[in-house]
Amino acid sequence: MTEKAKDLVEIRFLSYNAVIMVTKFPSPDEKFMRLALKLARRGLGKVSPNPMVGAVIVKDWRIIAQGYHKAFGGDHAEVDALKNAVKDVSGATLYVTLEPCFHYGKTPPCVDAVIKSKIGKVVIGMQDPDKRVSGRSIDKLKQQDIAVEVGVLEAECRALNEAYIKHRSTGMPYVTIKFAQTLDGRIATAAGHSRWVSSAESQKLAHKLRAQNDAILAGAGNIVKDNPELTTRLVKGRNPLRVVLDSNLRIPTDVKVFKNLDKAPTVLATTAWDAKEKLGERRALGLDVEIVPPDADGRVDLKALLKALGKREISSVLVEGGAETITSFLRLGLADKIVAIIAPKIMGKGTETIGELNITDMSQVLKLNFTKIYRSGVDIIIEARL
Amino acid sequence: MTEKAKDLVEIRFLSYNAVIMVTKFPSPDEKFMRLALKLARRGLGKVSPNPMVGAVIVKDWRIIAQGYHKAFGGDHAEVDALKNAVKDVSGATLYVTLEPCFHYGKTPPCVDAVIKSKIGKVVIGMQDPDKRVSGRSIDKLKQQDIAVEVGVLEAECRALNEAYIKHRSTGMPYVTIKFAQTLDGRIATAAGHSRWVSSAESQKLAHKLRAQNDAILAGAGNIVKDNPELTTRLVKGRNPLRVVLDSNLRIPTDVKVFKNLDKAPTVLATTAWDAKEKLGERRALGLDVEIVPPDADGRVDLKALLKALGKREISSVLVEGGAETITSFLRLGLADKIVAIIAPKIMGKGTETIGELNITDMSQVLKLNFTKIYRSGVDIIIEARL
Repeated sequence: MTEKAKDLVEIRFLSYNAVIMVTKFPSPDEKFMRLALKLARRGLGKVSPNPMVGAVIVKDWRIIAQGYHKAFGGDHAEVDALKNAVKDVSGATLYVTLEPCFHYGKTPPCVDAVIKSKIGKVVIGMQDPDKRVSGRSIDKLKQQDIAVEVGVLEAECRALNEAYIKHRSTGMPYVTIKFAQTLDGRIATAAGHSRWVSSAESQKLAHKLRAQNDAILAGAGNIVKDNPELTTRLVKGRNPLRVVLDSNLRIPTDVKVFKNLDKAPTVLATTAWDAKEKLGERRALGLDVEIVPPDADGRVDLKALLKALGKREISSVLVEGGAETITSFLRLGLADKIVAIIAPKIMGKGTETIGELNITDMSQVLKLNFTKIYRSGVDIIIEARL
Repeated sequence: MTEKAKDLVEIRFLSYNAVIMVTKFPSPDEKFMRLALKLARRGLGKVSPNPMVGAVIVKDWRIIAQGYHKAFGGDHAEVDALKNAVKDVSGATLYVTLEPCFHYGKTPPCVDAVIKSKIGKVVIGMQDPDKRVSGRSIDKLKQQDIAVEVGVLEAECRALNEAYIKHRSTGMPYVTIKFAQTLDGRIATAAGHSRWVSSAESQKLAHKLRAQNDAILAGAGNIVKDNPELTTRLVKGRNPLRVVLDSNLRIPTDVKVFKNLDKAPTVLATTAWDAKEKLGERRALGLDVEIVPPDADGRVDLKALLKALGKREISSVLVEGGAETITSFLRLGLADKIVAIIAPKIMGKGTETIGELNITDMSQVLKLNFTKIYRSGVDIIIEARL
């Protein structure tokens, strides 16, 4: 189930109460790449729309430098590692989770810094899907007679940056749907009571998810009914951009998501391009109005909205609710991942998490891949890919 | 989460790819009782309405005998162990998961066999809740100057025989509800398609559950719609008694559960005491008709049915469906345990696993305790207590 369990080779019983667990001995390349991955993860929630990247420099089998991309606009991992080196890096091997950049962005091209440093070999987790890179740095290194190896722990490197990869290759953000439901699939009573389905621990987890995503999205129904803040409060971390669907501008202007815009900006996605007065009021509050074309039902076209968010360099969106919004994302096939919090409760008839998907036959159901299961307080968390 | 994880004391890193996991050192009593528990479990699905019982005899710190209750009517664990002893048992310590029996049943009282064997000490997991025993054997042993200790690994011993304990203390069988649903809580499409929600592995698991229960119960709607066999086919094991709810005798006589009655007897539970002709037809097929008083809606009163099954020495019932039957058991508070198979699928509107429970406020929801989570093929299994 976990990476560790997959690598388990042998269990030896040492005594009645002690066992030795032996795992597959990783190749040195894997070992150093795993460290680079660990370093990269420290950038979670801090570097987007850039990817998380980690780097390790090894000389004579010793680690002489570690680095990672710490914050958007700051040094890239390779440059950070080169700066941290405790020895001369010439002839050393650089392990980096993602192909070094080829282009000028906030910082100069890393590939040039690497070449200049006289690094002897570069081991790369995965090629950069960004069209401005996309193998060009690999070619440039090879032209300089630097040994290059690509694809060490590639699956792990890809999993680390799935949001970045989707954003760079499709222009749309990676969409995670999060909900907290009872074992029987209800998120609220028929009367709309939903506080709280999940445990305090799971509510913290939900805030952690917020801090890890560039944006958080909710529908008008959810805002009107629950008046949530949609900010990161229960854990340390940034506030995501708040995105609110309000096709017909029915959300009153005094809701919480329209406040504290300096700390958590809010995008109001609407189709009501001609509601001059109402739009004026909302813009006056400081809301960032995004006019989106309507879908067949006259509501915000979600695909068009995702494209617009992608253009704003939003690489990941957390869809929190309500049921209608979640159902729309699923019906349109726009979701990439589900994080389901399952509370140890049974409600019977009430508000169902997922509404009509027009499925009449078992062969049409949406197929998931359960990628992770773990406990959170009394709840169970199931992570799934679509 | 598991017993092992709870007992974990320390993890020592031996090298990059090997760790030593040190668990709490069990007392010798716990160690031998754990072995007795392991032996007891071999009787699963073979001994009911008797309890599963295991026994270990230890002399000079060596195990000189092991035994367990293998089948209803056969030797009890203590007698089995005494017969298996490789040395003289006088002065030895007997570990047994349940208080030895005091009464004549299919076999003579074990307590007398233990006394006669000159065992010096008896360590007992738990007192027998059976009114014919209930501490009397413990007293008798003490009167014979045999040292007695009660309550070693009592929680584990109780968990092993929860069905037996409930049956002996309430007269009603232990009720497990099993269902296979999509992540969003549906067991079939709106049109009734339900084959198959779960994976082949989970279908095997469902058959294993059948073999472990004394009876399997389904409602008329489920029988008419799916025409299931309700027998144990995908794994080795006995067929449970089939119990079918058919208040108004609407199930046609040619369904599968009314066939092969010699291999899998079927109880037809109905309120239609005066439907002479229909009852006659069904009795002629070989069905065992159980006339049950009606509830307020004129349907089989489930509590009365459970009591009737308890009198038939049925100590455990597996409720398999459909949704209406499952909902009734939950609404009446008659379920003890849930085994939920969660398939990696999302269906949207369809047939919900759990129907109306008349819950309007979050404080009224049925509270569960998630006791086990594991994977079964691509599915996730959640076991819960009510």
